[in-house]
Amino acid sequence: MNLLGNTPARVHINDVAVRDGFQSETAFVPTEDKIRLIDRLSRTGLAKIEVTSFVSPKAIPNLRDAEEVMRRIERRPGVVYVALVPNERGCERAIACGVDEINLVMSIGETHNLANMRMTCAQSLEQFRRVMALTRGSPLRVNGTVATAFGCPFDGDQPKERVLWAVGQYLSMGMHSVTLADTTGMAHPQQVAEVSRAVLQAYPGLPLTLHFHNTRGMGLANALAGLSEGVVSYDASLGGIGGCPYAPGATGNICTEDLVHMFESCGVDTGVDLDALLGCARDLPAIVGHEVPGQVLRAGKRTELHARPAAA
Amino acid sequence: MNLLGNTPARVHINDVAVRDGFQSETAFVPTEDKIRLIDRLSRTGLAKIEVTSFVSPKAIPNLRDAEEVMRRIERRPGVVYVALVPNERGCERAIACGVDEINLVMSIGETHNLANMRMTCAQSLEQFRRVMALTRGSPLRVNGTVATAFGCPFDGDQPKERVLWAVGQYLSMGMHSVTLADTTGMAHPQQVAEVSRAVLQAYPGLPLTLHFHNTRGMGLANALAGLSEGVVSYDASLGGIGGCPYAPGATGNICTEDLVHMFESCGVDTGVDLDALLGCARDLPAIVGHEVPGQVLRAGKRTELHARPAAA
Repeated sequence: MNLLGNTPARVHINDVAVRDGFQSETAFVPTEDKIRLIDRLSRTGLAKIEVTSFVSPKAIPNLRDAEEVMRRIERRPGVVYVALVPNERGCERAIACGVDEINLVMSIGETHNLANMRMTCAQSLEQFRRVMALTRGSPLRVNGTVATAFGCPFDGDQPKERVLWAVGQYLSMGMHSVTLADTTGMAHPQQVAEVSRAVLQAYPGLPLTLHFHNTRGMGLANALAGLSEGVVSYDASLGGIGGCPYAPGATGNICTEDLVHMFESCGVDTGVDLDALLGCARDLPAIVGHEVPGQVLRAGKRTELHARPAAA
Repeated sequence: MNLLGNTPARVHINDVAVRDGFQSETAFVPTEDKIRLIDRLSRTGLAKIEVTSFVSPKAIPNLRDAEEVMRRIERRPGVVYVALVPNERGCERAIACGVDEINLVMSIGETHNLANMRMTCAQSLEQFRRVMALTRGSPLRVNGTVATAFGCPFDGDQPKERVLWAVGQYLSMGMHSVTLADTTGMAHPQQVAEVSRAVLQAYPGLPLTLHFHNTRGMGLANALAGLSEGVVSYDASLGGIGGCPYAPGATGNICTEDLVHMFESCGVDTGVDLDALLGCARDLPAIVGHEVPGQVLRAGKRTELHARPAAA
C-alpha cells in the first residue's frame, strides 16, 4: 500500500462534544452535567477538550454558562482546555477564565463565512489580528481553524492554494496551531491526503489537526487518509453529537469512541482509555435526551466476543 | 502517503441488497418489486447483482420466489447475475434458472460456521466439492466466500494463515473467484490491508472481492484500505440494508451509493451512474417499509451545492 507503512505510532484526540455537540441541543444541558462530563472526559487520556464557546448567550443559549463551566471544571495536567472565541470580547472572557487555548474560526468559502460569521474573510482576518494583539504577553495559545477547508456548501471545492493561503495568514499573525475542518462533510480521502500533504510540505512541523464530519459516511475513511499522511491530531465528538448548525443538511461530527476504536485497532496509540471513553458515551443519551450516532457504543468493541451459542 | 498513489483506476461494484438485504426483512417484499428493482439496478452500471438465494423457503421466507425472480428479470449483457447457494439442491435450482454465478459461503470461524451453516468447516468444504462436481460442464461460474475472514464474533480474530488456507481450498476445487467477507463488522483497515496483501501475494491475479459491514463505523475506511492494496471488486448493499441475521448485534452492509460516492469522489471509476443508483435508493424505503441507513441519500452528493442564502 503503504496505507499504514509510514503512519504515526501515536496520535492525539481532541473532543469537541461539550462545545460543538451541546451548542446544537435545543434543550439546555444543565451546567452540572457539563462539568461532570468534562471532568470525566479529562480522565480518559484525551489530549484536548473543547470546553465551551465565549459567544453571545443570545447566539448560542446552550453555552450561556461558559464562565461557570470553565471555572469549575477540574483542570487535569496534560489536558489542554480549549474555548472557541468569535471576537475580542470572547478572547477577554477566555483570558479571564484562564483557558489554555482559544480556537478562532474562519470559513475559506466566502459565502459560508458571510452566512456563518457575518463577515468577509478579510474582516475575519482583521478581527483575528485584533484578538492576537490581546493575547500577547499571556500564556494563552491560539489555534486557527480553516473551516470549509474541503469544500464550501455554497461555493464548492476550495483550491488547495486557498487552504495554504489561510494557513499562512494564521501563522504569520502568530497562531500556534491550525485545524483544517470539513465543516459540512464534503471531504473525501483523496482530497484529505492531497491537502494534508500540501500543508505539511509547505509548513513542515506545523501542529496540524483534522476535523471531519460523517455527513456522507466518509468520516473515518478521511481520518485514515490523514493518518496515512502523518497527521497526528484529530477532532471528534463523543457519541458523534453536533455538527454545523448553519450548514444546510450538515450533521454529524465523527464519533470520538468510533475513531479511537479504529485507530487503536490499527495499532495506533491514541493515549485514550477506550473503555473509560465508552463509559462517558454510554451516559450521553441521558444528558442530551436522545440517542447518539456512535456505532461502537451500539455494537461493542470488535474484541468483545459473544458467548458461543448452545447449539454450537 | 501513498494512499491512492498506486490504487486502481477502475473498480467493480456488486450489489447484494436484493439478496442480503431483503432476506432480513420480516415483511415479504413482493416479487414484482424485486424484479422491478433488479431491472433498474441492472441499468446503473453495476458489475454484479446478487439476485437471490436458492435456500429452503422455510429458512428464508422472503426469498421463496427465487426461481420466479431469477427467470423474470431482464438479463442485461455485461451484468453478472449471482445467486447464493447453500447445497447441491440449491446448485441444481440455480443451474435450472441459468444464473451466471453461484456464491458458496463458509465461515472460517468454526463456531460461526456451526451456528450459521450447521456444519463444521470440513463438512462445508465437502459439500462445496459435491456442488463443484454438479457445475462441471456448465457455464456456471463459482465464487467462494470466506466469511468471518476478519474475525469471528465467537472465536475472535482469525489468523491470516486460515484465510489463505480457505482461499487455497476454494481454488483447488476449481472456484473462479473469492470474496473475503467481514460478516459481523470486525474488520479494521490495518487488517484489511495486511490480509488483502497476503492473499494477493499468495494468489497473484486472483479475482478478489471484499465485502464489508459498517457495524463499527469502519466500513468505508476498510474499503479504502482494500483499494490502497489494489483490490478492484467490492460488495455493497443499496441503501445499506441487510447484514448477517445470525450474528448477534451485527447490522449493516456498507451502502452501495455511499461507496460509489466515495470512490468516484476519489477519482476511481466505478462504472456506476451514481444518480441512477441514488434514484434506486430513493425508492427503497417504500419497498421495505422503513428508512435505510445510506447517508448520501440524506445529505446529497458532495457536489450538490446549496443556494446561497439571501443574506450573503
